[in-house]
Amino acid sequence: MPMNVLVVLAHPEPQSFNGHLARRAATAMTTGGNSVRLSDLYAEDFDPCEAPRHFRSPRDPARFDPQAEQRHAWDMKSLAEDVQRHIDDVLWADLVILQFPLWWFGVPAILKGWMDRVFVYGGLYTSSRQHDTGVCCGKKILFSVTTGSPAAACAYNGREGETALHLWPLMYAFRYIGFSVLQPFVFHGVRGGLAGAAADAQRQRLLAVEDDYIRALSGIQARPGIPFNREEDWDEADTLKPGAPVYSPFIRHRRVLDLTDSPGRQ
Amino acid sequence: MPMNVLVVLAHPEPQSFNGHLARRAATAMTTGGNSVRLSDLYAEDFDPCEAPRHFRSPRDPARFDPQAEQRHAWDMKSLAEDVQRHIDDVLWADLVILQFPLWWFGVPAILKGWMDRVFVYGGLYTSSRQHDTGVCCGKKILFSVTTGSPAAACAYNGREGETALHLWPLMYAFRYIGFSVLQPFVFHGVRGGLAGAAADAQRQRLLAVEDDYIRALSGIQARPGIPFNREEDWDEADTLKPGAPVYSPFIRHRRVLDLTDSPGRQ
Repeated sequence: MPMNVLVVLAHPEPQSFNGHLARRAATAMTTGGNSVRLSDLYAEDFDPCEAPRHFRSPRDPARFDPQAEQRHAWDMKSLAEDVQRHIDDVLWADLVILQFPLWWFGVPAILKGWMDRVFVYGGLYTSSRQHDTGVCCGKKILFSVTTGSPAAACAYNGREGETALHLWPLMYAFRYIGFSVLQPFVFHGVRGGLAGAAADAQRQRLLAVEDDYIRALSGIQARPGIPFNREEDWDEADTLKPGAPVYSPFIRHRRVLDLTDSPGRQ
Repeated sequence: MPMNVLVVLAHPEPQSFNGHLARRAATAMTTGGNSVRLSDLYAEDFDPCEAPRHFRSPRDPARFDPQAEQRHAWDMKSLAEDVQRHIDDVLWADLVILQFPLWWFGVPAILKGWMDRVFVYGGLYTSSRQHDTGVCCGKKILFSVTTGSPAAACAYNGREGETALHLWPLMYAFRYIGFSVLQPFVFHGVRGGLAGAAADAQRQRLLAVEDDYIRALSGIQARPGIPFNREEDWDEADTLKPGAPVYSPFIRHRRVLDLTDSPGRQ
């Protein structure tokens, strides 16, 4: 079934592997019969800082409360033009693909700011519309991520920490507004500055993984998702009910040992 | 013993609770006999996007490779003025305090960009200077964080996910460049838009927690840290050696059950 696909790219260099992957994904999805929009945050010079300057009819010009101003601007239909456009894209999409390099174990600032400014309170979430009652329920999100480090260092027992789990707060954020979060696709060992044989070897390796990625996109409807708890699993205090299934790695971890409260060697 | 203390504030409203906490921390540390610098990222309109425009003498004007340009600019002493100033502050500090609201389970974009641009390759880390051989070894970092949700929802079994563990990628990043990461201080239930009795109740509650925070700052030398593996715990492939102590919640989790590869209900 044809889908509306939004590809969001967050890399400062159009010729980068990230830029290449975003365009290849867009082309592959178009060829597959889908409608595609490509949002290149650096190309449009997206401003990632939520700030008073974005609210032309502020509710309180004397004191800036981001959530209150977001809700007010949503209600008054006075959101900044760029934010409204990005919201329209998200609401239009059945599938969103985020293409970004992992910088400091998270998304580049321009992409974090896309979330800070575009996921507006009152619009994309409210106190009663979250998680599986979220505005974006029925939509899917795929993270396509590059890391500089090789796969071994990014494995569960690797020195960089496991990439899929560094992405957990990001998964949680998209789930919060209702998305079904697909298993991320991660390209490891994507390094600049290589020359000669090392550059050739990297190119060959990445070409093979890129083919895997394009195949994964063509079978995206069957890609497994990350499991989350449902509305009925939480009590009135937002605490997990006894007997509810446990999906969060954080809860699993805590059941093994209380790590954060145990001072250890530095 | 007197310390050099750098407070980094990331909130768009100077009158916010975050702004207040940053100033109170600065005052308390000054009163305690320390030297203090306060870096207000919004006040200086810090640009969080790593981009070609920040490199006045680029190594390769035709194709922007962030790491390569950072290393080149560090070596040539041609870093952007703001980045150099922030690096000087970090290198000067014995203790860094990051004051920020948790937005989408992470730092605001302006603070993520401070990391993306200021933690320069070749300067604050290299392939041989990381973790416990990092440039910032001997320095401590404290995250002082506000959340909109109440404590129960931010507990290990709460619907928002545990705050300390949403902060894990951030902890990992600071550890990567050598910092000792102190247990974060989290203020829950910090909400704007309250009036009357609800606003009074919040004010009273936060005043008490604020006192706890100032006390914690005065005893910061004794504050426990987050444990991380040491250099000798990793093999040549950056894999944890058998028998090495396990600190990462991600590794602990993985030993319980392989979550990310198990498709579950959506």
